[in-house]
Amino acid sequence: MNEEIIKKRIKALRRRLNGKKINCLIVTKPANVTYTTGFLGSDSWAVITKGGVYLLTDSRYTEQAQNECSYCRIIERTGPMVEAAAKLVKRLKSVQTVTIEKSTSLADFEALKKQVGGRLKTAANIIESLRSSKDAGEIAAIRAAARVAAQALKQTLQYIKPGVTENELAGMLDFQIRRLGAVVSFDTIVAFGPNASRPHHQPSTKKLKKNDTVLIDFGVRYKSYCCDLTRCFAVGRPSALYEEVYKAVQEAQAAALKMVKAGAEIRQVDAAARDVISRNNLPVYGHGTGHGLGLEVHEEPAISAESRGKLQAGMVLTIEPGVYIPGKLGVRIEDDILVTESGYKILSRNCPHRPLSLT
Amino acid sequence: MNEEIIKKRIKALRRRLNGKKINCLIVTKPANVTYTTGFLGSDSWAVITKGGVYLLTDSRYTEQAQNECSYCRIIERTGPMVEAAAKLVKRLKSVQTVTIEKSTSLADFEALKKQVGGRLKTAANIIESLRSSKDAGEIAAIRAAARVAAQALKQTLQYIKPGVTENELAGMLDFQIRRLGAVVSFDTIVAFGPNASRPHHQPSTKKLKKNDTVLIDFGVRYKSYCCDLTRCFAVGRPSALYEEVYKAVQEAQAAALKMVKAGAEIRQVDAAARDVISRNNLPVYGHGTGHGLGLEVHEEPAISAESRGKLQAGMVLTIEPGVYIPGKLGVRIEDDILVTESGYKILSRNCPHRPLSLT
Repeated sequence: MNEEIIKKRIKALRRRLNGKKINCLIVTKPANVTYTTGFLGSDSWAVITKGGVYLLTDSRYTEQAQNECSYCRIIERTGPMVEAAAKLVKRLKSVQTVTIEKSTSLADFEALKKQVGGRLKTAANIIESLRSSKDAGEIAAIRAAARVAAQALKQTLQYIKPGVTENELAGMLDFQIRRLGAVVSFDTIVAFGPNASRPHHQPSTKKLKKNDTVLIDFGVRYKSYCCDLTRCFAVGRPSALYEEVYKAVQEAQAAALKMVKAGAEIRQVDAAARDVISRNNLPVYGHGTGHGLGLEVHEEPAISAESRGKLQAGMVLTIEPGVYIPGKLGVRIEDDILVTESGYKILSRNCPHRPLSLT
Repeated sequence: MNEEIIKKRIKALRRRLNGKKINCLIVTKPANVTYTTGFLGSDSWAVITKGGVYLLTDSRYTEQAQNECSYCRIIERTGPMVEAAAKLVKRLKSVQTVTIEKSTSLADFEALKKQVGGRLKTAANIIESLRSSKDAGEIAAIRAAARVAAQALKQTLQYIKPGVTENELAGMLDFQIRRLGAVVSFDTIVAFGPNASRPHHQPSTKKLKKNDTVLIDFGVRYKSYCCDLTRCFAVGRPSALYEEVYKAVQEAQAAALKMVKAGAEIRQVDAAARDVISRNNLPVYGHGTGHGLGLEVHEEPAISAESRGKLQAGMVLTIEPGVYIPGKLGVRIEDDILVTESGYKILSRNCPHRPLSLT
């Protein structure tokens, strides 16, 4: 990652840390490590003080870290991570108290406490809240991931034919994603017919029938940023119920989108989509209406009835209402959007949407 | 999963819990939830008491849980997980103290502590240590995953030709894995030539040359169990250095395998492989010599110089020494083995190994 971007993020982070009187933050969540150091590997922690940014990694990643983290001091650990972190913070004279992220496991927290004692504090969501509004580079990266996803799906559509299995279709989509230099951001979901009533169905050897429906929920991680999309297609002639449900889900998504702009109450975005489903006398979905995405495929904010915050410009969200009728069908439409001062921009516009029917 | 298997696991777990005077365990680690309930989805916790096994999930997974978890009481939560767990344990009259796994995040621990107070205790590695020795069903599942991996790699070998990119080869392997009804257990690594000196290289648009080398490190998750394999191939004529290194890595793996049997000191397995590399005047690898695998691709035990335990019959391990010379080459050979009373069985025997050279 560009050194200037990392510098800017660290500057913003240090401002927050100063405000909270934190003089040393141990960063353990992988996406937060990437955000603050540019490092794309795993099993590594970052330590951020007034004077330095340190990456604690091991020999598997040293060469990679040297390429990716020009702004950090790279420390190659040989023993356990907790010991390496304790050794570093003890060595740094400027460090009075040590703060660790609350997403850390209890086991690591307790092990570190043994080494640094009462100086150990905890803090939640400091980097996550910085990450919830994306900078221009991040927005471009998510847009690029959505472009790869759209291209991969377009190239996969030709294989949606009676006889193909859910596994084969998922495999073909995964292949196209890889060929384009990206990886999946989660296990691709392909569900035919009633299988789509399980929002997280796992692909099977089920074959597509002559008149059938397909739900594809997939994501791409490209240059470390994620997108997350769902599309539904009908092959042959869809049932009247399916068409009715599809239309209701489209309307629900449009209603949610209409509520999106900086300053909007997040739960009102959620409510707008649910109201449409409910007014159509269809069962209201149990999952959230969407979620933030970026370095992780699920990040802040969640878009649900329990959400208490407001949207901010620069947030990138999924909007994904659905209708699920066990034994019959499942329909979900999911796009990725950028929140702006006046509304939103769809980042996944190129992803094939219509026609509802493929043949 | 078979109800009888889950019953047997719960019986063994309750014996351990009794021994530790734990009367209610909250299970939060996804693989531990799968192990104790049979549930294959995510975002779910299990609660295990003397009298019951409860799965706390949400509406996305209710239908799936009903199919997978015949031995559990399924509770569909609508609010936050911590609240659902607190509500359940408060309702259960037999529960005096509540114990949560130490792999849980500090944030969840603190939130739960607020709800259940001083009754909240922690415990580490209870289910993990049960999981480290596999039962017959688990061994069969890992063997099946290795069989899928072998078949997928065999079908991919024909694409290893000058001009193919690392991305394309990774994509083709992923496709074959999917087509066979499995998913990757981690992002497939394909590294040509010197790229293989980074043990966790990410595939790129780099093209295979006429005389070149290929390292493929990949894994398959099949019916929820993982395998993890690495193979190296030379295309055209490999350099003398490459051949020398390859031979040394083969010898190192053989030396480690020779040490494997129930009762062996784990660190001696590690030392045996390193000694061979060192005696060949080659740089000794910085990663472990192997790790347990099962529901997770990395689980107990780690095989390293710091490991303190002994091998037990029923453990399933990778053995994966390597040699990395930045700018020149990387070679790693990784197989999956079952520890037996008298030695070991290779579970990945079908995975193409030789010839070193493909053309």
